[in-house]
Amino acid sequence: MAVRAIHTLLLLCTMALLLTGLVSPSTAGLSLDTVRDFLTREEDTIVFSLIERAKYPLNRPAYAPLHFGAGASAGAEPGRNLNASFAELFIRESEAVQSKAGRYQNLQEIPFFAYRVPFTLAPPYNFTRDLYPAAALVNVNDTIWSMYFNELLPLLAKNGDDGNYAVTADADLNISSGAFKKDQLWQDRDALMKLLTYEAQEDVVKRRAEKKAIVFGKSITLDGPIQTGVNNSSLANFKVDPSVVYKLYDQWVIPLTKQVEIEYLLHRLD
Amino acid sequence: MAVRAIHTLLLLCTMALLLTGLVSPSTAGLSLDTVRDFLTREEDTIVFSLIERAKYPLNRPAYAPLHFGAGASAGAEPGRNLNASFAELFIRESEAVQSKAGRYQNLQEIPFFAYRVPFTLAPPYNFTRDLYPAAALVNVNDTIWSMYFNELLPLLAKNGDDGNYAVTADADLNISSGAFKKDQLWQDRDALMKLLTYEAQEDVVKRRAEKKAIVFGKSITLDGPIQTGVNNSSLANFKVDPSVVYKLYDQWVIPLTKQVEIEYLLHRLD
Repeated sequence: MAVRAIHTLLLLCTMALLLTGLVSPSTAGLSLDTVRDFLTREEDTIVFSLIERAKYPLNRPAYAPLHFGAGASAGAEPGRNLNASFAELFIRESEAVQSKAGRYQNLQEIPFFAYRVPFTLAPPYNFTRDLYPAAALVNVNDTIWSMYFNELLPLLAKNGDDGNYAVTADADLNISSGAFKKDQLWQDRDALMKLLTYEAQEDVVKRRAEKKAIVFGKSITLDGPIQTGVNNSSLANFKVDPSVVYKLYDQWVIPLTKQVEIEYLLHRLD
Repeated sequence: MAVRAIHTLLLLCTMALLLTGLVSPSTAGLSLDTVRDFLTREEDTIVFSLIERAKYPLNRPAYAPLHFGAGASAGAEPGRNLNASFAELFIRESEAVQSKAGRYQNLQEIPFFAYRVPFTLAPPYNFTRDLYPAAALVNVNDTIWSMYFNELLPLLAKNGDDGNYAVTADADLNISSGAFKKDQLWQDRDALMKLLTYEAQEDVVKRRAEKKAIVFGKSITLDGPIQTGVNNSSLANFKVDPSVVYKLYDQWVIPLTKQVEIEYLLHRLD
């Protein structure tokens, strides 16, 4: 009921915005088909990045507080948390390089941490600003961070420690930043249209993401047929458990997407 | 004929090494099946990373000399090439973070550039040194760098410029470093056994890699069957051209793998 009420409210807001001409002119050329194609393609990226992370064990020391003190803080900004984990320090330093390289000049890309690194490395490019400025105020990073490290990662990675902490933290960053966060914000570009159609699509999106985990996650042999049904194979044959991918979309990606859309719309009404 | 002669030579060297007991004891527990499973899994990583790079256009400015001078060199080591491209500078700085995070403590991981960055960020881990020390002398980085940027990338990416230079250079680094280079060196762990069996496997490897590009690169829909034959679909439906993946394995991955194995064996004979 609550969800239905919010959708009704959003439908009203949407119609009001359309009527009052507040729709960004720059999104006019961005059709619903384009957005849908982009999102469908991003599902592949998410499933690929999940499969890649599942290649490595959990590597628990990468996520425990380091207590390294001065040794660990070389090159990082002052005042950061000395109780930070290796994964957090690694993501901070990787994002600082990305920031210097201009990645966050594109408004669809949001770092987990704010950087004061000058943007000096990349050739200049004029990104179109087809997100409303209010989009910058919508940020679910804390939720994504906590969800990923506390809930999704333990489902994704087997217990074990192979010492490849940099590679696994890089894979973590790819999942939560490269695919997941961009996925959220892009939808704001055409949020008004999306909102009217997304609910009916939800079941399709969840089941398609699960199917991608099955197809991309199977072992491919030259001779055998491609198995597409879950019943044909034991779960042990998949590189990542398809039900985890379903759960990711069902419990996190879709609800967070809605949250971002709602906050974005509310900011636009300010 | 030349290839045949080298294989005969290697077979003789291998037998000599086995007879003289020079086989590393630490590779004894690493069965051929384990190595083969690892390499087969790495094919997935390569195909995933190719598909991810193909999502973006060529982004030519990322590969042209920057001529940035002082502005670009902040934070990098002295003496680097001011004619470097953005991609090179980005890879240097990304690898420096990885180095600090201990990635290259694992001998299977080789950076393109040497770093004097202290290894301070990561929790300690005792990597087993089951590569012969001679492995450190075997390095085909220059060949991989030139092959990737000059030959493979133009086949992979469509013309165009969307300004996402940091993301595309990150995807470049994933292909050429994350998957491709590790693929080379791991084989040295069991190079002696591999050498005796790889040739018969070559055709299987090439065709399986191509099939993975077909399966992973198809658009997945909930209702439709999975198309596995090239004839069933036009090339335009694939996220990356399967023949490019075949060519990558046929012309570069397999020949370079052999080159590494040969050099590695020769170093061990020193």
